[in-house]
Amino acid sequence: MSTAPQRGFPNTEFAARCAAAQAAMARRGIDAMLFASEAEIRYFTGFLTPFWQSPTRPWFLVLPLTGRPVAVIPTIGVPLMSQCYVDDVVSWASPAPQDDGVSLLAGTIRKIIGGTGTLGVLMGRETAMRMPLADVMGLRASLDGIGWTDMTADIQAIRMVKSDRETAKIRYVCELAEDAFDAVPEWVSAGMPLDQLFRDFKRDALGRGVDDVSYLVGAAGAGGYQDIIAPPSTRPLANGDILMLDTGCVWDGYFCDFDRNYAIGTPSAAAQQAHHRLYDATDAALEMLRPGITPQDLFVTMDRILRPQGAAQGGGDDVGRYGHGLGIQLTEPPSHTDWDETDIVAGMVLTIEPSLVFDDDRLMVAEENVLVTPDGATLLTRRAPRDLPVIG
Amino acid sequence: MSTAPQRGFPNTEFAARCAAAQAAMARRGIDAMLFASEAEIRYFTGFLTPFWQSPTRPWFLVLPLTGRPVAVIPTIGVPLMSQCYVDDVVSWASPAPQDDGVSLLAGTIRKIIGGTGTLGVLMGRETAMRMPLADVMGLRASLDGIGWTDMTADIQAIRMVKSDRETAKIRYVCELAEDAFDAVPEWVSAGMPLDQLFRDFKRDALGRGVDDVSYLVGAAGAGGYQDIIAPPSTRPLANGDILMLDTGCVWDGYFCDFDRNYAIGTPSAAAQQAHHRLYDATDAALEMLRPGITPQDLFVTMDRILRPQGAAQGGGDDVGRYGHGLGIQLTEPPSHTDWDETDIVAGMVLTIEPSLVFDDDRLMVAEENVLVTPDGATLLTRRAPRDLPVIG
Repeated sequence: MSTAPQRGFPNTEFAARCAAAQAAMARRGIDAMLFASEAEIRYFTGFLTPFWQSPTRPWFLVLPLTGRPVAVIPTIGVPLMSQCYVDDVVSWASPAPQDDGVSLLAGTIRKIIGGTGTLGVLMGRETAMRMPLADVMGLRASLDGIGWTDMTADIQAIRMVKSDRETAKIRYVCELAEDAFDAVPEWVSAGMPLDQLFRDFKRDALGRGVDDVSYLVGAAGAGGYQDIIAPPSTRPLANGDILMLDTGCVWDGYFCDFDRNYAIGTPSAAAQQAHHRLYDATDAALEMLRPGITPQDLFVTMDRILRPQGAAQGGGDDVGRYGHGLGIQLTEPPSHTDWDETDIVAGMVLTIEPSLVFDDDRLMVAEENVLVTPDGATLLTRRAPRDLPVIG
Repeated sequence: MSTAPQRGFPNTEFAARCAAAQAAMARRGIDAMLFASEAEIRYFTGFLTPFWQSPTRPWFLVLPLTGRPVAVIPTIGVPLMSQCYVDDVVSWASPAPQDDGVSLLAGTIRKIIGGTGTLGVLMGRETAMRMPLADVMGLRASLDGIGWTDMTADIQAIRMVKSDRETAKIRYVCELAEDAFDAVPEWVSAGMPLDQLFRDFKRDALGRGVDDVSYLVGAAGAGGYQDIIAPPSTRPLANGDILMLDTGCVWDGYFCDFDRNYAIGTPSAAAQQAHHRLYDATDAALEMLRPGITPQDLFVTMDRILRPQGAAQGGGDDVGRYGHGLGIQLTEPPSHTDWDETDIVAGMVLTIEPSLVFDDDRLMVAEENVLVTPDGATLLTRRAPRDLPVIG
């Protein structure tokens, strides 16, 4: 049992994150960045709260070319944000009847940029502006003379490479979740309804020290499962089932994301073979993973093992890819697909997530979490065995 | 102990929801609605999954003027969506290198609307387009000849009024959470670190049958607390503390949202008095709550008790309002503020959430969940006592 890392980050960490963004801004001729979503606001300031689940209020962060960011947020967030890495906290009583922070935000941006200049915004892949579309358009209109430039690739490139402190949090939550997976055969048996199993898994993981079992999906079916994103049914586990559990547990705001498969009783030969193939594909990915390769390389290598008859486009038949980044979010760039040519570098935390279809319509997915090192890669998970673990 | 309601909804429920939206569309001259966010896609189809936590893939739903909606979604969601209330499921392998569903969506909308017409979109208060801004602009450009009209108010008006089946789910999760709150004094005591308390509360609530403790915030401090959205500290509870826990537990995709305050040892007179005042404000709100009044009425009535010296604008000093709607989301419209003139009708589920500042900088919040009935209102929670419950 490992000990928990320190919670939070020192200001030096946020300073380094902002400096990296500011260097990218300087390269691109950006005068200020606007962030309007949870992941980036947390990444640059340390503002950690489950309050984002309330869609009522917008939250904004403006990062100038030098210095700390300025938060433009609802009054309810001032006590917490004031303890974060910010230069200033500008606030208003939200929800407001008409102008819910938009003029205040526009004024803050104007103060930094002036009459003309360029605002960096995230408008690309895997992003979304967490504010009403009418307000996006209103903001754009009121920032007349200021151009908007997409900075998605630059900010994602920064966030993809984790610091040691980030990695330590992910490693720790991986260990706690792995302990929970390891214990599953001790308390799960045929006859247990899947929804009860989910509830008990969450309780077990919380008991081991995770802050939240934010994400838990899974499935069980005779000879294999077909759907990997549905909530649990009330169907009791039966002998001959293959059970899969995939969890994104969270510790101090950082995710793990991996799954484990189990056979309830003796598995079919086809299911066992599928599990072997996923294991071998993972092996091949782990063997090649090092700085300098691309997610595309990982995809091609795994796909040759998973679909030796030839591949369709894009990624796994149903899943769309064979893994991705993770960290503050359950899934982050890059994507292990046949088109993602991101340069893999040391410090990236990735999932290796091969999937395949067998017996016509059965799906099987395996997943591990790894840290890219200067020489290769280190597993953050303990690795599923090649043979399906048997329950009962 | 009440028994759990049936999970899910019959198709008649989704048909009624779509019909209500289609009636609003007909009134406004809308040819099709576009939905791109979790709450609405679930509301109109029953598509329930935690997979939304992955920001990678966009998901779309198009509702024509008649008939069932058409889903335009990543392949990974097809098995689950095919079991939902949809006419057709159009899918693509996502994430895609360039055109991540946008052309497919534009084509689907064109097929329904034709060359010219009007698309209804949510772009107002409390909404956000869950897709990259560049794709929003690309979609708009490729839908040349089709106007976009904001339908936020119409769709919110429909969602605000809950069916009996929705209410049953909220009532059930309120009961489970209330049982968890009631048990707190049995296992919490001075010396327990707040983060441990949070973890144990989640385990307890899961043990009672909630699907998730999706939202748990709280605070404890000598004589009162100051921040109501921060994650728990590791500080042990001490005699003289006021402890507050506020939870959004989920059952079958529906939230409760209420809090409870506790005194660790004998509370200060000021804290006790604050709790009394919150109770009295809640009483006044419950007494007046019935169809025909507005959230503004609730605000004014509560504010007179909470801030007899005179009110600032907008809502509670720091919180911004004295309650809101809830259901699929932790917080939904309306907002109990001095400006929200929504017509309250039977079937609305609301929080009554007075807050006040005392002893200069201490905040206290109380919260109950209520169902508006034809004659008045029924508590879904069991109501906090007027005196602060004392632990130890």
